[in-house]
Amino acid sequence: MKTVACVAAALAVSVAAQENAPPLAIAKQGSFFVGGHDVRSDTLSTAPNFPPVGTITVDQVYVRYQIPVDVKGAPITLIHGCCLTGKTWETTPDGRMGWDEYFVRKGHAVYVVDQAARGRSAANSSVINSVKLGKTPPGELPVLQSAAHEAAWTAFRFGPEYPKTFSELRFPVDAIGEFWKQMVLDWAPSLPTPNPTVPALSELAIRLNGTVLVSHSQSGIYPFQAEAIDRKGIVAIVSIEPSACPDAAADVTPYTRIPALVLWGDYVDRSERWAPRLKMCQAFAAAVNARGGRIENVELPKTGMRGNSHMLMQDRNSLEIADWLLAWIDRNVERKP
Amino acid sequence: MKTVACVAAALAVSVAAQENAPPLAIAKQGSFFVGGHDVRSDTLSTAPNFPPVGTITVDQVYVRYQIPVDVKGAPITLIHGCCLTGKTWETTPDGRMGWDEYFVRKGHAVYVVDQAARGRSAANSSVINSVKLGKTPPGELPVLQSAAHEAAWTAFRFGPEYPKTFSELRFPVDAIGEFWKQMVLDWAPSLPTPNPTVPALSELAIRLNGTVLVSHSQSGIYPFQAEAIDRKGIVAIVSIEPSACPDAAADVTPYTRIPALVLWGDYVDRSERWAPRLKMCQAFAAAVNARGGRIENVELPKTGMRGNSHMLMQDRNSLEIADWLLAWIDRNVERKP
Repeated sequence: MKTVACVAAALAVSVAAQENAPPLAIAKQGSFFVGGHDVRSDTLSTAPNFPPVGTITVDQVYVRYQIPVDVKGAPITLIHGCCLTGKTWETTPDGRMGWDEYFVRKGHAVYVVDQAARGRSAANSSVINSVKLGKTPPGELPVLQSAAHEAAWTAFRFGPEYPKTFSELRFPVDAIGEFWKQMVLDWAPSLPTPNPTVPALSELAIRLNGTVLVSHSQSGIYPFQAEAIDRKGIVAIVSIEPSACPDAAADVTPYTRIPALVLWGDYVDRSERWAPRLKMCQAFAAAVNARGGRIENVELPKTGMRGNSHMLMQDRNSLEIADWLLAWIDRNVERKP
Repeated sequence: MKTVACVAAALAVSVAAQENAPPLAIAKQGSFFVGGHDVRSDTLSTAPNFPPVGTITVDQVYVRYQIPVDVKGAPITLIHGCCLTGKTWETTPDGRMGWDEYFVRKGHAVYVVDQAARGRSAANSSVINSVKLGKTPPGELPVLQSAAHEAAWTAFRFGPEYPKTFSELRFPVDAIGEFWKQMVLDWAPSLPTPNPTVPALSELAIRLNGTVLVSHSQSGIYPFQAEAIDRKGIVAIVSIEPSACPDAAADVTPYTRIPALVLWGDYVDRSERWAPRLKMCQAFAAAVNARGGRIENVELPKTGMRGNSHMLMQDRNSLEIADWLLAWIDRNVERKP
């Protein structure tokens, strides 16, 4: 282990630092929303610019997409984790190409979402404003979380304790300052269960008429929850280091019909946070497979890839993992006639 | 005037509804942050998942960019307004191409930002958490605003009162449900002046070594404020319907060296909110030009384009306005040797 000075390397990460690649040919790109509903409130604003009473739309999910000219595989939907946004899948902290672009270059339409109440998907501050106006007790304020650098360091398995790194770690910790800028305020603990992102993903899959749902961490369980609502449109599930899997002791029948991969990086057994989650997902996969399902639970170190953090889509070997993942998708998604 | 039923037309806005266009050739695309600094807090989280004490990074500004293969003009930076995000410039509510893509197709590198504490740029909930924990009085909660549909309708000049529309309005009100989904919680009233987005824009302009700053509404004044900090890297300013211009009675010398356009849609004289702002900017432009500057204050109806709302980049004639704007940029930005 070595100690890393957390210098603000972000400013040094220039556009020019991105690797050279041939031009990207896009057939279509854009953005839209899925989900969402109107709510009325009399505490929408405490600023003079807008009145407090009226209607807003919340629980919608922002989706940005790119469709390549030369489509070769299934559309892929990328869903970020706790305290992050769709930025997770874009340019890495040290300026390398993100999976969002790489998958397009490999012939997949790519859809990147911001979870409900995160990023470009609206949050609702009505209760906060109501407390400010003395109409609601402070104890009813929403439960909000931001991940401190110090805590995120171990939670994301950059090292055993801040700011030490694991031996052979592949995360670009020299650009950690740019990674910290990706982290945002997370309203998820205040949202209903399942998270409104889940029915929105179900709606998206139906609208796309076929997509692989690729989730991460906090959102790891969302594709399984969407499958339980309606399997229509979901052609495969890739759950990267989920913070939970469905309960293996409950009825797992809803999870038996779509091929799924649960994927893990390195150092899991050295993490009090992650070791039990891996076990939970192993039990889930075993239960589903015992009922005729197809869930693979893969630890990258066992395939020969070592040194990967929780943010494996940003690790130095991220495109090597991407290739491995695309091969899995290619093997497991049935070709449309 | 006609009454419009605010149906949730959003779901009908499919990817397929976008107009056909030839493939887009991208030399480079990606995202990064400018600005930002670390803060310590002991109320970062009230959820069990992360501890309350530690460091987070705030006031950074998210930037997504695309550089075309065939560059013909100056890089353009797009800055959204109140209660919105960078989504403003992407696919319109009724599924047409946004300026973000159109400008790239016309040979400009395009940079789209999310203002500080908005969208993919982190907000800081430490005070909210502190109030929830009983450490801070409720009156110190941040001033937050969401724009109600009813109030936004007149503020964005879709009509004289909700839900009536102005005669010949060009905003696609049949897709208003998708527009409401673009609106987000706005922390700006709680942020310092100038907004942290302003120094971040200055940093971005220097880093890009030349860009046109295109702002809208709440951000309308930001490019002028950035110019006052450091004119370096700013090759022109386009301020679309700014909610304020710099004070004409103060020293306007800092604004005399960069060509600028202040652009207005229709129905301004029928709006109590906007008519005084137009006058304020007319006075500002006159003061700057009297000192040798080059600011044009243009009302689109006087050029023959009628029916434009405050969201003119989303109006049905948005690409016609884009062409007009690109011609202005071409005339006013000096070519690099």
